[in-house]
Amino acid sequence: MKLRRSDRMVVISNYLINNPYKLTSLNTFAEKYESAKSSISEDIVIIKRAFEEIEIGHIQTVTGAGGGVIFTPSISSQDAKEMVEDLRTKLSESDRILPGGYIYLSDLLSTPAILKNIGRIIAKSFMDQKIDAVMTVATKGVPLANAVANVLNVSFVIVRRDLKITEGSTVSVNYVSGSSGDRIEKMFLSKRSLKAGSRVLIVDDFLKGGGTVNGMISLLREFDSELAGVAVFADNAQEEREKQFDYKSLLKVTNIDVKNQAIDVEVGNIFDEDK
Amino acid sequence: MKLRRSDRMVVISNYLINNPYKLTSLNTFAEKYESAKSSISEDIVIIKRAFEEIEIGHIQTVTGAGGGVIFTPSISSQDAKEMVEDLRTKLSESDRILPGGYIYLSDLLSTPAILKNIGRIIAKSFMDQKIDAVMTVATKGVPLANAVANVLNVSFVIVRRDLKITEGSTVSVNYVSGSSGDRIEKMFLSKRSLKAGSRVLIVDDFLKGGGTVNGMISLLREFDSELAGVAVFADNAQEEREKQFDYKSLLKVTNIDVKNQAIDVEVGNIFDEDK
Repeated sequence: MKLRRSDRMVVISNYLINNPYKLTSLNTFAEKYESAKSSISEDIVIIKRAFEEIEIGHIQTVTGAGGGVIFTPSISSQDAKEMVEDLRTKLSESDRILPGGYIYLSDLLSTPAILKNIGRIIAKSFMDQKIDAVMTVATKGVPLANAVANVLNVSFVIVRRDLKITEGSTVSVNYVSGSSGDRIEKMFLSKRSLKAGSRVLIVDDFLKGGGTVNGMISLLREFDSELAGVAVFADNAQEEREKQFDYKSLLKVTNIDVKNQAIDVEVGNIFDEDK
Repeated sequence: MKLRRSDRMVVISNYLINNPYKLTSLNTFAEKYESAKSSISEDIVIIKRAFEEIEIGHIQTVTGAGGGVIFTPSISSQDAKEMVEDLRTKLSESDRILPGGYIYLSDLLSTPAILKNIGRIIAKSFMDQKIDAVMTVATKGVPLANAVANVLNVSFVIVRRDLKITEGSTVSVNYVSGSSGDRIEKMFLSKRSLKAGSRVLIVDDFLKGGGTVNGMISLLREFDSELAGVAVFADNAQEEREKQFDYKSLLKVTNIDVKNQAIDVEVGNIFDEDK
């Protein structure tokens, strides 16, 4: 299909956005849109500049025979901070308090526009890491892991607290459930869902005692895989926990006052490395 | 931020792709990129043509005071058919057969590139419907519902088979579990997760007896909501079922031969309306 330059730019930028972290040779575009490789090169220069101007991400050009372009999505620090601030306001809404001092957050974690932004923010924060897979625990972590995996263009694996026949052979580990630390439960991961030697980013919705994340770290060892990092949507700073792993959080819940129906939420540590 | 035309086109097309089904006024772009509204209009004409040439989707221009542009994502019939054919091949791999004649498909439903395509294909197939939300049942349906909801830019709701305190008040219904039809179980949906009067698209991974989908349809009634349609990744044509609802399937499993480790898969009915 022969396209004009302007059309080609729209089409190539769309392709790159939909195929992050993937090396594509300029010949692929040249053949597809019946253009000279030099013209595609010029298109890429313009797209690269536009992407960088509005901080959508970076385009890297790899030279040589196996070369091409790779798009790494990003998000501007300002946009990221505004989005997290908006989430902080939403999470502070008093009607989110459930009996027992739990916080309702399913609505936030099932809205595509919010999930896409969370995915971009977390992915950017682990940009310098090699990540082969994203891991989470069912059910509420799934959309989060999915969102991060979409940006990183890697698969995600879902750890389960129950045993399902449709998962085939599984590996199980014990983990400490609940903040009191006196309940030991099991979590399961399908044997074929994670390759040995993977570097894995663990993503979860709400960090309380840390038992679930510790369980997932044990699972990584069982799969001869490595922890690349831990990211959570919200961190409950009220819970005492022995810090056994580093993590990044978008939000930090500092107080839940059930009597007065008030939730205090701060921005988490995810921007701490930014100046 | 003042941008050149070429940069503006890249940036505006990126915005539209990331904000499907959303009306955005041309003034928004004009102000953001310090350009005349007439220039933005011309940009849109070029983007619209490029999107239609490669069948990424349609841009509709709404005139008048509250006007603007809306992007409706799509996918070319040829691409869609090639993708489903590729999935058919993958689903036919004999090593997917699990003891008991179950099929392992978690790997397919946790790969972003596959999920994005499934989302586009299902969303396109319900393009003429007004859809306010996508509904599924935990856990394997979640990434599918998420993918479809991303394209439609609506929220998704997750029905659960267990009761979680973090969901707050729930409504439950009984449903017939398993193909034998003799086991009645309960499914739950958080009360605040779905607004009354919603038109809902039900999405699930594997259609067997149909009990789960029937359960979700009962839930819709409890929420004074309406069924917009049912879409499944794969339909098990081996199961006898009383057809109580219309559905669209990407794939149809016609035979699982555990002894000879063979799975027969055909393309489902999702393209039946296309010529």
